[in-house]
Amino acid sequence: MTLPLNPAMAATEPPPVMEARRWLQGATFPADRPLINVSQAAPVDPPPIALRQAIADAALTNDAAHLYGPVLGLPELRAEIAAQWSAAYDGTITPDQTAITQGCNQAFTAVMSTLAGAGDEVILPTPWYFNHKMWLDMQGVKAVPLPAGAGLIPEAEAASRLITPRTRAIVLVSPNNPGGSEYPAETLAAFRDLARANNLALIVDETYRDFDSRHSYETGGRPHDLFTDPDWSDTLIQLYSFSKAYRLTGHRVGAIVANAARLAEVEKFLDTVAICPSQLGQIGALWGMRNLAQWVAGERAEILARRAAMTGGFAALEDWKLLGCGAYFAYVEHPYPMSSVDLARRLVHEASILMLPGTMFQPDDSAEGRRQLRIAFANIDAAGIADLFRRLATLRR
Amino acid sequence: MTLPLNPAMAATEPPPVMEARRWLQGATFPADRPLINVSQAAPVDPPPIALRQAIADAALTNDAAHLYGPVLGLPELRAEIAAQWSAAYDGTITPDQTAITQGCNQAFTAVMSTLAGAGDEVILPTPWYFNHKMWLDMQGVKAVPLPAGAGLIPEAEAASRLITPRTRAIVLVSPNNPGGSEYPAETLAAFRDLARANNLALIVDETYRDFDSRHSYETGGRPHDLFTDPDWSDTLIQLYSFSKAYRLTGHRVGAIVANAARLAEVEKFLDTVAICPSQLGQIGALWGMRNLAQWVAGERAEILARRAAMTGGFAALEDWKLLGCGAYFAYVEHPYPMSSVDLARRLVHEASILMLPGTMFQPDDSAEGRRQLRIAFANIDAAGIADLFRRLATLRR
Repeated sequence: MTLPLNPAMAATEPPPVMEARRWLQGATFPADRPLINVSQAAPVDPPPIALRQAIADAALTNDAAHLYGPVLGLPELRAEIAAQWSAAYDGTITPDQTAITQGCNQAFTAVMSTLAGAGDEVILPTPWYFNHKMWLDMQGVKAVPLPAGAGLIPEAEAASRLITPRTRAIVLVSPNNPGGSEYPAETLAAFRDLARANNLALIVDETYRDFDSRHSYETGGRPHDLFTDPDWSDTLIQLYSFSKAYRLTGHRVGAIVANAARLAEVEKFLDTVAICPSQLGQIGALWGMRNLAQWVAGERAEILARRAAMTGGFAALEDWKLLGCGAYFAYVEHPYPMSSVDLARRLVHEASILMLPGTMFQPDDSAEGRRQLRIAFANIDAAGIADLFRRLATLRR
Repeated sequence: MTLPLNPAMAATEPPPVMEARRWLQGATFPADRPLINVSQAAPVDPPPIALRQAIADAALTNDAAHLYGPVLGLPELRAEIAAQWSAAYDGTITPDQTAITQGCNQAFTAVMSTLAGAGDEVILPTPWYFNHKMWLDMQGVKAVPLPAGAGLIPEAEAASRLITPRTRAIVLVSPNNPGGSEYPAETLAAFRDLARANNLALIVDETYRDFDSRHSYETGGRPHDLFTDPDWSDTLIQLYSFSKAYRLTGHRVGAIVANAARLAEVEKFLDTVAICPSQLGQIGALWGMRNLAQWVAGERAEILARRAAMTGGFAALEDWKLLGCGAYFAYVEHPYPMSSVDLARRLVHEASILMLPGTMFQPDDSAEGRRQLRIAFANIDAAGIADLFRRLATLRR
């Protein structure tokens, strides 16, 4: 290509999931050992039929479902989030402190655009979510890695030593992708205090909130106390996705909870990049929020059962070390004398398993990435998990 | 807000359409003079029922319609674009030279991210499309204004004098938003030659292609010869929107046509910002491409009739000057001794008309913007257009 190429884009790594998918090209899988694809955190089943019917009905009968809507999203959906969040988190969140985006990735890019430009710095615990890293790279923002501590829980004390005059934000994902760890409320509070003291934004991505083992809408309780602080909006920016809870991945609906002044800046970005989120997706998300609480509780129970199977499986698997397990993910250390990239490729050919190497979640110079692997277990049932462990157990050293 | 704010975002003007909409707050409109809203280029009617039915059917029966799809879009839609474009433009466009985005605004931001970073320059003819300007501003890219010549047609010769070592691209919109001008094939060829000679990208946004007065799928002919050049992809990047032709604004579906190496870079951006376009929107766009050619021809005829009414109306309206008229827009010079911003506000209160002032499409220091207004006439029928001119004719000086 002779045309100009933005050097920051050229330096951005291509999306790991797609690179991994290319490893499948040319691979053949025996009939008695079909592919187990644990590379991506995505439901493989569609939403329940009643939700699909609600979307179909809107397509046929609701003219507005086909036309531009407000940049920051459907007022009814914003109001529903404000009401349900205020109850779930024991805090006060108003509709004008919410915004809808075309998925949670876009929520991150929109928020980050209002915070940091080229030359600024953002602290990301490692292992990190690769799309966060990619956005910072393509914007010329420096991603400052914060190695997570025991149990893949990052420590505010360690983060404090990374803050410079160029630092603009700290980004946490809890429950964590890729690590699977569920951050204690005290951890989140400590990061909030650190961010506030240093005039930084604290971004908390809660895409996997609905699968937290510690609480649910059914059981009650809340994952953290951040919203009980009446001044939460001076520091906290929360991100959410409707993709996992309601299986709406193909509709691209996410959300931002932040103060209204921040959202006025976000609105510039969303007007320019999105104009508005998909109307049918928003209608589906709203229908889900109003009608699927019970169904989501069942989904959560199933994910927690799979999580237990993963934990049990690794406890019985010699020399593998389970570093974190929760949300949709198990994050592990392997015992093989090779890089995780080479092992991941071997697993495709010798065990018909596709998982992502830790190198995709760690800085290039990290030795840890080469020992680590992420397993997105949400898509495999009990039989599949048993099969996964049988294959791992028999893989030759 | 005490939290950090990216200075480039702070310096970006808020979206004009929303600012204009705020002028409506508190305004009251007499029963015999209801609001004529010609501020936004958006269909106010939904797509034809058969297209709505196709979307509803997919929601109910096609599981994949709810799940993640490929980052660069549905293969069937990319192949359909390649086939229809190759025929319509008398050139060779392959499926891997196409990509689907969440609307044409996103297509622009994705492409521009691969071309220009902070400190680079991009040439935009004025009056410009404000979301293009906003993206460049928030990225710290300098928008270099190229005042359009006679008939609001920019000249490559004038553009050549604006090229510096930091120039990365020239952006053309034809038929033009906001100017309404349809660029001659020779103009586009001259810009292509200029871009190629200077190793720049030529971006041509053809969102309003389906309403070009000079050609249509029915009448045959093509708006330009750029794709007849076998080497088109070394310079040309074309953008398209499915929002106008098929009234799919609320679904957010756009397209990029460019070389495959460029699209590999675009893929990084789209994976990070979008993951994938809305599946239902893509299904609707594909259904439209396969079934609505005849219907779009009727839409075009209606828009061209409204365009003729606008041209006739301004010819009869003393002292107003029609600078350009086409696509969805009339772009005019007003005769009032006041800024177009003040006039636009007066029009809301004294004539119940909402249109956008030229200041929203021109650099801040431009005197022209204060004399100009954009009228998005696509939403008003013959009666509405007659009413519009009656009101303009009686507005006191």
